This record gives sequence, C-alpha cells and structure tokens, in this order.
Amino acid sequence: MDNFDLSRRLVAEALGTGVLVATVVGSGIMAETLTKDVALALLCNTLPTGAILVVLITMLGPISGAHFNPAVTLVFTGKRELPVNEAALYVIVQIAGGIAGTMAAHLMFGLPLLDLSTKVRTGGPQWFAEALAAFGLVATILAGIRFQRTAVPWLVGLYITAAYWFTASTSFANPAVAIARSLTNTFSGIRPTDLPGFILAELCGAFAGMLLMNWLLGSSRAAGPVPITETTR
Amino acid sequence: MDNFDLSRRLVAEALGTGVLVATVVGSGIMAETLTKDVALALLCNTLPTGAILVVLITMLGPISGAHFNPAVTLVFTGKRELPVNEAALYVIVQIAGGIAGTMAAHLMFGLPLLDLSTKVRTGGPQWFAEALAAFGLVATILAGIRFQRTAVPWLVGLYITAAYWFTASTSFANPAVAIARSLTNTFSGIRPTDLPGFILAELCGAFAGMLLMNWLLGSSRAAGPVPITETTR
Amino acid sequence: MDNFDLSRRLVAEALGTGVLVATVVGSGIMAETLTKDVALALLCNTLPTGAILVVLITMLGPISGAHFNPAVTLVFTGKRELPVNEAALYVIVQIAGGIAGTMAAHLMFGLPLLDLSTKVRTGGPQWFAEALAAFGLVATILAGIRFQRTAVPWLVGLYITAAYWFTASTSFANPAVAIARSLTNTFSGIRPTDLPGFILAELCGAFAGMLLMNWLLGSSRAAGPVPITETTR
Amino acid sequence: MDNFDLSRRLVAEALGTGVLVATVVGSGIMAETLTKDVALALLCNTLPTGAILVVLITMLGPISGAHFNPAVTLVFTGKRELPVNEAALYVIVQIAGGIAGTMAAHLMFGLPLLDLSTKVRTGGPQWFAEALAAFGLVATILAGIRFQRTAVPWLVGLYITAAYWFTASTSFANPAVAIARSLTNTFSGIRPTDLPGFILAELCGAFAGMLLMNWLLGSSRAAGPVPITETTR
Repeated sequence: MDNFDLSRRLVAEALGTGVLVATVVGSGIMAETLTKDVALALLCNTLPTGAILVVLITMLGPISGAHFNPAVTLVFTGKRELPVNEAALYVIVQIAGGIAGTMAAHLMFGLPLLDLSTKVRTGGPQWFAEALAAFGLVATILAGIRFQRTAVPWLVGLYITAAYWFTASTSFANPAVAIARSLTNTFSGIRPTDLPGFILAELCGAFAGMLLMNWLLGSSRAAGPVPITETTR
Repeated sequence: MDNFDLSRRLVAEALGTGVLVATVVGSGIMAETLTKDVALALLCNTLPTGAILVVLITMLGPISGAHFNPAVTLVFTGKRELPVNEAALYVIVQIAGGIAGTMAAHLMFGLPLLDLSTKVRTGGPQWFAEALAAFGLVATILAGIRFQRTAVPWLVGLYITAAYWFTASTSFANPAVAIARSLTNTFSGIRPTDLPGFILAELCGAFAGMLLMNWLLGSSRAAGPVPITETTR
Repeated sequence: MDNFDLSRRLVAEALGTGVLVATVVGSGIMAETLTKDVALALLCNTLPTGAILVVLITMLGPISGAHFNPAVTLVFTGKRELPVNEAALYVIVQIAGGIAGTMAAHLMFGLPLLDLSTKVRTGGPQWFAEALAAFGLVATILAGIRFQRTAVPWLVGLYITAAYWFTASTSFANPAVAIARSLTNTFSGIRPTDLPGFILAELCGAFAGMLLMNWLLGSSRAAGPVPITETTR
Repeated sequence: MDNFDLSRRLVAEALGTGVLVATVVGSGIMAETLTKDVALALLCNTLPTGAILVVLITMLGPISGAHFNPAVTLVFTGKRELPVNEAALYVIVQIAGGIAGTMAAHLMFGLPLLDLSTKVRTGGPQWFAEALAAFGLVATILAGIRFQRTAVPWLVGLYITAAYWFTASTSFANPAVAIARSLTNTFSGIRPTDLPGFILAELCGAFAGMLLMNWLLGSSRAAGPVPITETTR
C-alpha cells in the first residue's frame, strides 16, 4: 500500500465505491424491470454484487486496501493501521464515489440523476440485521487477512452474497453505500430518514466484530506480534 | 490449531455453527417470503449456504478445524485427531451455537425466538438421502484434506450446493444443524419427531464415508504415515 | 496416480461417475418437482452438476485421474497415458458406476430403481451439439493440464456449467453418463434408442478436440517433451 | 506467449472468440426458449458467459493472451505489447471467429446459419453503458495483470457476470462479439444499424480505462519499470 501515494489511494476508494454502488443500483433496476418475481430480482441483484466485490477488491486492494466502506475504514483506524486524517479523507471520497455510482446507474438507465428513495427500511429487526451484517463483514475481513490474505476478495464477495439473503435488511453493511442508495427510488433504495438507524447499527456491528476478532484471533498487543501465516503478495 | 486455546476453539465452533444456521434459516425465510416458486426459493436457500460455508471454514478452520457438525467431530475423534473430552465440548457448543443461529434469524425477521417446526421429513428415501449426504460430506472433507488442504472450504461449499439438490432431503447432513432447524417453523424446518431418523442416518453415512476413505486414500495405520502432498498453511 | 493400485483407481472411477450421475439425475428430479419453469429447472440442474464436478475431480483426480467418462479415457489411451487393458476396465466401471448413480437417485426420491426414458433427443442439430460439447470438454481438459493443472477441476465444472446452456443438447458429452441417463424417465433422461447417435457424436467430438489441441498446444511427439509449466501437486 | 507461433495464436483467438459468441448466442436461445421470464432468461445467459470466460482465458491466455476482443487488442497495441500488424490479424480472426460462433449456435439449435437481428439497442444511455462496460473491462484486465496475473480469467468472468446486470446494455463491451451478435435474430442480438454506436462507445471506454489505469497503477514510462509483484506462470 505504501507504494501508492495518497491521491491514487483516494481515487481507488472513490472508484471502487462508485462501481460497487453502480452495480447494486444498476442491477436492481435491471432486475425489477425484467421480472415481477421479487426473489428472482433479489437474486439478480445479489450475484452481480458478489461478483464485482471480488473484482474490485482484487484490483484496488493493493492500492488503497479496498475498504469502500466507512465502517471498515474506522476499524482499520481503530487498529492504528490508518492515520485519522487519512481515514477522514477515505470516508469523504467513499461517500462522494458512492453518490457518483448512483448517478452513473441512473444515467445508464435513463433516469433522473438523483432521486430520493421512498422505500421504508426501519425498526428493530432491520437494525439488528444491519448490525449483524456489519459484524460478520468485519469478522470476515479480519480473519481473512490473518489466515489467507489473497482469499479476502473472495471471502468478502461470498459473505455479501450470503448476507443479502440471511439478513432481513439484505445487508447494506456500509454507511457510504447506504447514503448512495438513499438517492435512488428504485429496487435497492432506502428512505433518507431511515439512514441514521442503519448507519448507527452498522457502526455498532463493525465495532463488535473488531472486538470479538481481536480476542478470537489473539490480539497482537496481548500476545506479542502475530505471526504472518501466509506469504503476502 | 494448537496455537489456539480450547476456549477460542469452542467459540469458533459455536460462532461458525450459529452463522451457518442463521444463513440456512434466514435465507429460507427471505426466499419463501419473496416468491411462490419453490425451486427458486430452494435456489435462494442453496447459494447463500454454499457461500457462507466457504467463508466460515476459511475464517475459522485454522482456529478450531471448522467442524460445525457433530458428525464431522465424531469422524475426527474416530481418527484419533481430537480427544474424546474435547469432542464432547465441540458437540455441545455446536448445538448451542446452532440454536442461537435460529434465534438470530428469527429476531432479524421479527418472528418469535423459537418455534417448533411442523414440516414432515421422514421415511426410508429421506433417511437414505441423509446417509448419502453425510457420506459424501465426510468423503469430501477427508479427500480434500489429503490432496489439497487449502481447497477444503471451497469443496465443502460446493458439495453442499450440489447436495441441496441431488439428495431428496436437501442435505442437512449435520445433527447440530438439524436440531436447530427443528426450532423454526419456516422453509428450512424439520419436525422435532423426525430428528432421530435424520441424525441416525447422518451418523451412519458419516461413518461409512470414513471407512471408505480410510481404504481409498490408504489408511495411515495399514500403510505407514501418509505423506502430506501439499504444503499446509 | 501410480501411488494408487488399480483396485483403488477403479473404485474412484466408479464412485465419481456414480455421484456425478446421481447429481445430474437427482437434481433434475428435485427441480422438475418444484417448478413449472423449465429454464429454472435446467438452472437448478446445471449448478449442482458444475459444483459436484469441481469437488469430484479435486477429490479423486489424484487417485484415478478422475475421467468419469469413456470419451476422456479414450483420449488418454490415445495419448498413450493409459494402457488399453486398464482403459477397458475404466470404461466398464464408469458405466456400472453411472447406472448405480441413477439407482441411488431413484431410491432417494422413492422411484422404481430403473426406468427407461421416453425423452426424445435425436437429429442433426443435437448430434452436432454433442460433438461440440465433447470437443470443448476434451480441449478444456488438455489445455488445463498443460497450463494450470490444479485449476482443471474448476475448468471442467465451469465448462459444463456453460455447455448445459450453449449446446442444444444440454451437453451430455459423456457416453457413460448418457447410458445411465437412459435409465431414468425424468428431467434428465434420454430415450435408449437415441443413445447410439449421442455416443458416436461424443466420441467424434472428443477425437477432434484431441487432434486440435495436440497441434495447438504443440504435440509432444513433434516438438520434444512438453515442459511442465506449473508444479504438480 | 512467445513460445507459440503466430498461426497458433491466431487460431487461439478465433477459437476463443468463437466459443465465447456461441455461448452468448446459444445460451440466449436456450433461455428464451425455456422461459417467459426475461430476468431469468438473462440470468441463464449471464452465468454461462461468465463461466466460459474463465475457462477460455485460462486455456488460451498462455497461447495468444486471450483477448477475444478488438478493444482489448487495441489497448495492448497502444501499450506497445503487440505489434500493429499482428494486432490487425488478431482483430480479423476475432471477427471471423465470432461470426463462426454465431453460425455454430444456429446450427445446434436448427436455425438458419445467419440472420440479421431486429433488436434495437441505441441511444445515449445505451452508449454510456457500453463505454462504462468497456472501461471497466480494460481496468479489470490491466489491474489484474499488475497485481495477480493468475486471477485474470476469474476477474474477467466475474466482471462480465456483474456487468451483464449493472449496465443497461447488458455489457457487450466487445466489437467483435457485437458484430457476431448482429447476425442472430434471437435473445442476444443487436440490430446491425446500431453497431457503430456500440463499437465507438466501446473503443472510447476502453481507451479511457487504459488512460486511468496507466496513471492509477503507475505508468511504466513515467515511473520506471513496474515491478512484477507475483510470479508469472
């Protein structure tokens, strides 16, 4: 990562989040246009999202770490692997990139550039689902980095593929993506007023995931340097 | 595995079994809510299950071995790779974790925490299917460990993806998961009174799988130490 | 391969072909039972087949080569990598294993053990499709072995996943599997009288695939020993 | 690549483009024949295409580079990795191979060898979608080569799987394939008069992808030799 200067890293974060959101929003529009079966539409929303995550994390991970997600950026900042000022810039470009992704999807499908969502996503079960989704995402990333670093793009793609279905919220698990999805009134949207609940739940879940994995994987502070068990690229 | 103390290993087994069950039960609820087509619902139950297995086994395999399954734990105990007293603890936390997984899924979807299933799954063909499912699972694991250890998470995920469809029982192949699934009255449930037949069939199948692979792969007792053909992580 | 005696190799071929056929036939029965949409049924037949191929070839490839297919066995015999007498035994156990696979699927789904198919699959376009399917399968295997041996299970699984859809015949590409499928009167069956056309087309396609790849990859006879470009397991 | 003479490389490009087009066209015909649900048909068009790309690029990449795409060939020519005269031959055989692929699909499904498409695919949103599709494809390839060369077949297959759904045009992203698809009046066709817009958009997108990645990955001219971060096969 240190081979790439900050400007390249920020472009990578913006580009990655943008393409991720364009995929989520765009495949949602395509799917709901082509079928009346909601399960089929969600499947056609899930598979492209999982696939593009593998691609984007492999492509951009070596440049910026491929967070594409403020919750993930906060975890790495909490683990002192990213300075706070850089983390703030990461979060800003993730949100900006995500919104650009929604605009790109709308442009491709001939819709107005941005449009507030009216889709209600709120309430305890949804918040619990989002917390669990972010918990699992962070746990997947941290365990993946610890045990099989080159598999992380696959693990994240597969985790999100599963989480689309096992969480009642279809697993946003990402505040920047949630904000971008509040600006599309299509299949994958979320009502802007429901954002705070989602974002708070995601951050709590991510934090819990970090705490658990710090203990489960053996915290490097408590137990001395963690041995790298696999050659990094 | 010996780098991790027993408490971490037990948490890994409970966490893994819990997330596995939450995925099976949760994706089943999501799928049957969104479509009337049962094949589509089963597909939307299958793909998340296969995906999460790859993730969980990669994440937690280096900690606990990632059994998540009493039948698998018994096989490794039978092969003298896990002491009997640890195996007993493994089985207990697998069952407890699995039940917690059902509860988590129910919480996310706003259902009562636990609910007895009324879904009938019994009779000779179903039992034969479960025996075959567990036979194949154990054979997959043992051959995978022998020939390409790092591929085991993928092999198990893909095996279960196939077994959901080729076995008439949709391949539970796991007593702890079966117990947890008896406590949800949704798509993936099983009537509690049908549990003994399933569990017995699974254990028989697993035992047969171990016997066949011991011979097919060359038993280490009959033929001296088995050479490791691939570098382990 | 030479670490395993002939009896183990024959059991591996029978077991692999049997599980492959059980997956094709079983998932076909499950799919047509659960949906009226034929495309969805074919998809639910395709994905398990592709998945189980990755598993079976990884598991059994190091034992027997994981042909599971007389056309593939003939190619390796033609390339002088398998003696003719062993090839004959391979073909016999593949056919026997395949038929046992149909019986296992029928047992699991509570059908009569064997049942002649009435599904018509004949005519020039179907034969051309089968020839092309087998051509592509052999080309995939030979190029995979040459360039990335450990990827072969994946390449075959993905090739068959694609070929189910791009060939008009849903890509049997395997005489032993075709024979076994003539004994089930369900989704994946083929009328016994249509077998000769399919089998002949498959053998012609496989032979053409071998000829083309011998030239394209550089025949070992014409150009001296082919360098192994990747470490074998 | 330099181990293979030009004739083998040209056959590899023609064969690969041909099988790719046969898969796109053939699976489209199969899908629209079997279902009325357009989303399901597109899914059954997507998965085989993604799968065959992984296979073809793994098989033929070491021979010809596995472009199968004039836009990709132009990028490598622009990067001075392929002489202009060879690039011209690549493009010719890609187009010829693609047309042969359409013919093969038609033969298998009993249709007239070639048939002009009447499917309208035109207008700003579609062109923007095609530009974005080609931009992403080129970015994926260049970053993949830079960071994890052996993963490129997977990255391209997964990228196209996603792009089928997130681009409004279903992501042709390939002038040779677009030409071949103008000659089939089935699911995957494109009206010949709409070709120029698609091809121009694809070339613009590919060029933009090359420019961005040259900067993002560190241009080899501006920054000295790019270190290879992974052992090539």
